[in-house]
Amino acid sequence: MNVAPYARKAQYYETDQMGVIHHANYIRWFEESRVDYLEKIGFPYERVESLGITFAVLGLSCEYKAPVRFGDRVHIFVRFTSCGHSRMVIGYRVADAATGEPRTTGETSHYFFRKEDGRPVSLKKAIPDLYELFRSLVAS
Amino acid sequence: MNVAPYARKAQYYETDQMGVIHHANYIRWFEESRVDYLEKIGFPYERVESLGITFAVLGLSCEYKAPVRFGDRVHIFVRFTSCGHSRMVIGYRVADAATGEPRTTGETSHYFFRKEDGRPVSLKKAIPDLYELFRSLVAS
Amino acid sequence: MNVAPYARKAQYYETDQMGVIHHANYIRWFEESRVDYLEKIGFPYERVESLGITFAVLGLSCEYKAPVRFGDRVHIFVRFTSCGHSRMVIGYRVADAATGEPRTTGETSHYFFRKEDGRPVSLKKAIPDLYELFRSLVAS
Amino acid sequence: MNVAPYARKAQYYETDQMGVIHHANYIRWFEESRVDYLEKIGFPYERVESLGITFAVLGLSCEYKAPVRFGDRVHIFVRFTSCGHSRMVIGYRVADAATGEPRTTGETSHYFFRKEDGRPVSLKKAIPDLYELFRSLVAS
Repeated sequence: MNVAPYARKAQYYETDQMGVIHHANYIRWFEESRVDYLEKIGFPYERVESLGITFAVLGLSCEYKAPVRFGDRVHIFVRFTSCGHSRMVIGYRVADAATGEPRTTGETSHYFFRKEDGRPVSLKKAIPDLYELFRSLVAS
Repeated sequence: MNVAPYARKAQYYETDQMGVIHHANYIRWFEESRVDYLEKIGFPYERVESLGITFAVLGLSCEYKAPVRFGDRVHIFVRFTSCGHSRMVIGYRVADAATGEPRTTGETSHYFFRKEDGRPVSLKKAIPDLYELFRSLVAS
Repeated sequence: MNVAPYARKAQYYETDQMGVIHHANYIRWFEESRVDYLEKIGFPYERVESLGITFAVLGLSCEYKAPVRFGDRVHIFVRFTSCGHSRMVIGYRVADAATGEPRTTGETSHYFFRKEDGRPVSLKKAIPDLYELFRSLVAS
Repeated sequence: MNVAPYARKAQYYETDQMGVIHHANYIRWFEESRVDYLEKIGFPYERVESLGITFAVLGLSCEYKAPVRFGDRVHIFVRFTSCGHSRMVIGYRVADAATGEPRTTGETSHYFFRKEDGRPVSLKKAIPDLYELFRSLVAS
């Protein structure tokens, strides 16, 4: 499946006094692009939640290659890196929309849990077709 | 009752590319100082909520007198401006902690509602002593 | 001139524990829509700044009519309310993109100043065609 | 040198609709605690910058052990993990202030550059006593 990148414009309130987008904001951009990606592959967050499952963030990492400035347009490429029964890892690549030059890369890891009682679940058992979809995205 | 102002240090991530604290952050500072104030007068938010009541923000205003910069320390003075059965208005004054010079002023208006069903309530009926406390704070 | 509203999706990280978009975020949405509006009328922020002029926020107000939730799509309508030599006022109306129902309204007031030395300027003298454009937007 | 942890209270506007502090906020807390730490060891950010040097964030990572909720008080322990001529790594441990239970850990890596022209510098050459101080903090 070929999913179009998430398009984002850097906002004024996201800059800091160095004149660049403050580094903490990329974590939010990753979330935006993850939500967008789930929507594009036909499993919007709302649908996952309506099936009683939620993803929690276990950890993340981010590497800053080059700054983004106010008004810049970026593309965020999302990629499923791995998906097991209880966990998945998603990768992100932020690039300048015009030139394609790399800006930031990152990764978030998640586990699946039941909204009802907060307990970890096997995605394979809970939502088998979402599990299969995630697996196929990892493979591709 | 004489309540000490809320002390706050301006953070790096709150600056923008003009080199000053971005104007949207003051709304958050107002909230911080409001929470702090409720705690200082003996009715922390948790206690209000445990009694089944919540405050929602109906509206707000803010006036910017002079910028605050990274590392600056400010004092935020909170004041109950009015309190009726169903609504209250709270005022804020942000001043430089060292010089006392004004930085920003603002106001938020709130209504009281029941957490259970989101319906507006009379604070006077729901938590009479909190209502009386708020009234006395307005008067003083 | 008929300017299309700014389209925005409410993000997960903008929610608070009440399950709605936190009230401080609307101030940022106003800024996003203002920047978008200037772009649409042919005077993007960068162009104004390249002419040596900047807008500073003098004050703002916001009224909350109904909550916006994660995943909701809104339209933000921007309107020039007044424009004098040294100041302007801009109004905002956030509405549900699907139903048109009102969510939030607000206003920001700005003054014009020279980037070089931070001194207030007459927009009429500094960038006459931008001044005329703003005036015509107020009238329409 | 034994540096007291940074004390922080979790704010309402930092929560998300899961009822916990949104994961992106910890990156800001790390920054707050880093700034506080530099102040406590006698080299506040302003002093470093007045010597013409700045730190840029090269990368970061964060692991989420347990959630923090509105009103919780945490302690953030900062530790210099490594410091070379051109780079340093700082570690963070967020723990509940009352119980000491772990909440989040993380790391940020930085490089040193000249404010004037944005070029990387050797901290050892640029500010020898800060370099020596950082080295001694790593060792301890």
